[in-house]
Amino acid sequence: MLNSKPLIKELKKTLSPENVLTTVEECYAYAQDASNSKEVKNLPDAVVFVKTVEEVQRVINNARRYKIPVICRGAGTNVVGACRVVHGGIILNFSKMNKILDINPENMMARVQPGVVLGDLQKAVEDVGLFYPPDPSNLKVSTVGGSIAQASGGAKSFKYGTTKDYVLDLQVVMADGRILRTGSNTVKNATGYNLSPLFIGSEGTLGVVTEATLKLIPKPEAKKVLMAYFDTVDGAIQAVNMIIEQKVFPATIDFMDKNAIQTVEKFYPAGLLCDKDCALVIEVDGFESAIEYQQKIIEDILHRCNASQIDVSHNDEEYERIWTARRSSMGACAKLKPNVTTDDVIVPRENLAKLILGIRKICEKYNLTACLVGHVGDGSVHPQIPIDYNDEDEYRRFKLAKSEIYDLTARLGGILSGEHGIGAEKREHISKVINGVALDYMRLIKKTFDPDNILNPYKIF
Amino acid sequence: MLNSKPLIKELKKTLSPENVLTTVEECYAYAQDASNSKEVKNLPDAVVFVKTVEEVQRVINNARRYKIPVICRGAGTNVVGACRVVHGGIILNFSKMNKILDINPENMMARVQPGVVLGDLQKAVEDVGLFYPPDPSNLKVSTVGGSIAQASGGAKSFKYGTTKDYVLDLQVVMADGRILRTGSNTVKNATGYNLSPLFIGSEGTLGVVTEATLKLIPKPEAKKVLMAYFDTVDGAIQAVNMIIEQKVFPATIDFMDKNAIQTVEKFYPAGLLCDKDCALVIEVDGFESAIEYQQKIIEDILHRCNASQIDVSHNDEEYERIWTARRSSMGACAKLKPNVTTDDVIVPRENLAKLILGIRKICEKYNLTACLVGHVGDGSVHPQIPIDYNDEDEYRRFKLAKSEIYDLTARLGGILSGEHGIGAEKREHISKVINGVALDYMRLIKKTFDPDNILNPYKIF
Repeated sequence: MLNSKPLIKELKKTLSPENVLTTVEECYAYAQDASNSKEVKNLPDAVVFVKTVEEVQRVINNARRYKIPVICRGAGTNVVGACRVVHGGIILNFSKMNKILDINPENMMARVQPGVVLGDLQKAVEDVGLFYPPDPSNLKVSTVGGSIAQASGGAKSFKYGTTKDYVLDLQVVMADGRILRTGSNTVKNATGYNLSPLFIGSEGTLGVVTEATLKLIPKPEAKKVLMAYFDTVDGAIQAVNMIIEQKVFPATIDFMDKNAIQTVEKFYPAGLLCDKDCALVIEVDGFESAIEYQQKIIEDILHRCNASQIDVSHNDEEYERIWTARRSSMGACAKLKPNVTTDDVIVPRENLAKLILGIRKICEKYNLTACLVGHVGDGSVHPQIPIDYNDEDEYRRFKLAKSEIYDLTARLGGILSGEHGIGAEKREHISKVINGVALDYMRLIKKTFDPDNILNPYKIF
Repeated sequence: MLNSKPLIKELKKTLSPENVLTTVEECYAYAQDASNSKEVKNLPDAVVFVKTVEEVQRVINNARRYKIPVICRGAGTNVVGACRVVHGGIILNFSKMNKILDINPENMMARVQPGVVLGDLQKAVEDVGLFYPPDPSNLKVSTVGGSIAQASGGAKSFKYGTTKDYVLDLQVVMADGRILRTGSNTVKNATGYNLSPLFIGSEGTLGVVTEATLKLIPKPEAKKVLMAYFDTVDGAIQAVNMIIEQKVFPATIDFMDKNAIQTVEKFYPAGLLCDKDCALVIEVDGFESAIEYQQKIIEDILHRCNASQIDVSHNDEEYERIWTARRSSMGACAKLKPNVTTDDVIVPRENLAKLILGIRKICEKYNLTACLVGHVGDGSVHPQIPIDYNDEDEYRRFKLAKSEIYDLTARLGGILSGEHGIGAEKREHISKVINGVALDYMRLIKKTFDPDNILNPYKIF
């Protein structure tokens, strides 16, 4: 067992005492994250709040000296146990290191600290006519640092890509205590190795991000959302493929299946049609003059694919109503049983219908209710599964179903996460989709960057 | 001195003899690249053509055994000496490994071998209504492999990003002879470390790319180009900034200064206005219905910034005329003196006018003629400098000017390459913009991936 006491004593000396929490009650609050995992067995030894890069360096230098793991945490909204302590260690909490340092409209860049809430950043840049597209559904609480750690995407990834497409430069405290600048203040960079992406999605295992320079783009002038219902998954996916075959390029092509629709409607009534098999939520954006044009093409395709009803937002209120319904799925699902988990699998789009129907079949087999939502334009599906952890048999079935969903995803040429990460939760399954050579090189990089294995150990692989 | 003879003997046994060139005449043809460098001192020991990943593995395994450097080459169009042999080694030539393996419209992906010519790939995907945006000006000859090695951009990077934004997966033969898959067949990936970007821009120093899976997007329905002339650089750059402040998002905001305009007009008359200080070349694309709208906003801005003339393409022919003129700059420049070089510096856009005016001043000081073109929307400038290498004094002045241009770029917060790479040519200057910690980590990665330093040594850092 690791002894964190000398490290904590040291940190209490070098940081102000109110920023080093050590009571059981305090540590308990940071033992879990939004994975809602049943596997949480240990509390962190301490929770340390930092405000400056120098403080981070002090923590890392001491942690290295005492060989104590350091696990970074923003808002703790990740769903894979990425900011959970596995075998001892301290939580490095960034919620007080949350300044938007600069928004530069001329350069179309923002420079922020890791604790900045994504929604706050988006609002601030939109106020000056700019746009930061990554939009995970928890963006009202989740932080920039977390979105970098987990390579977050969101509904708009279809057109606009994910976090990795917007990070220009990171300031990172490395395990050796030194400060690395990974990129540049320029929108293009072919000067030396491209280091920034290595930290995006590495879940705090390679270094501690203390500042990010992000690329912004012009804010689209207008947007509109369509919700179309279908009687079969095949019909919906055929529509997705036909939309893609045309020259329209929606911002979002999202999906809700009947369980998701019915569950949302049960707890947050929004007028959704509960007798349909599934629905697509399609957002178009761009110049006002091109919105109706896109809408018309899409509506035509939806009709041809036998959509049984199409709702179109005509104003902000209708736009919000549709999106709120789509985004409420996880919250509604959580009301069905004491616990809920969400997952994240992704396949080449050509295998999407097989994935969705296969997940349904697996959940039926194990007598589980899955609400399926997803960014189907990307080939991505989020099965949200309500569960009672006190029901041991249900948990056993849940674990078996998960494993089969991953096997199916692998068979369909997909991977285990498109935008959530692997963390502690899916670690045992990663070799289903990542081969030995790639895992070897990932481990080599980890060992090279963090020889003492103090940065968020027991995660990813 | 390295002895390549045993390796070459081995390769002649394992590959068919016509694919292993060793005569002085044959090797001479592969000693230089489009850097047109005066510094080429050595011929390759052999030029080896490969067609399969197994052949690449055989070459790498043998090269490692005999500790002989391997330098990959596509079309040799890079301009920084990236595929030049510095102290012995063999050229691994991919021009025969040039198949488009698959274009999948449903997945919006293409799978290609490294020797595929970029222009051929673009045509093939456009034939099925899709779009692969990276468009370096040499795309009619340059290869996908080279564009990955050098992290190529192009005129459309402003809206569409560069090569790194389109690579989903790479098959790479590593220095240990094993095959690494860096990514996945999915458009999003948060499963393990993000390895693909490490190879994009690493100039063949970390592994040998033998296959790439690329993301495609829907082809824009329509496009139009505007060319606007200005009497001052400040006026042009003010227009760039005002365009960016608006909600228009052109595909391209390019630049030509008076030297570039006059030189093009001298050798490839296109009706350009030679009495102006500079010009912007602005392309808008998207839905037909939004083209005129964007054009109107941009024209209005250009007038307000005192553009003295604005040409607008009304058909394909006029579109091609403007772009051919912009792209002819390097070729025209080459006619002024026996040699010509192009460079690639990039700064945050707010410092762009200072960079352009500063480069002019430096070239005047050293009595050099620079034709300045660039993707100014990105903050990127390509000084094209004609020179006579037999004039030793001119070469001395040229080297001094280059060094001062890099110093200026560094002072303005920029970097030494946005889309060409560093290669052998700019290696001595990289520490002007990349700090010691970042260089240390780049070297650590290099050593970890290629402990015997056989992959394109003496490049980048």
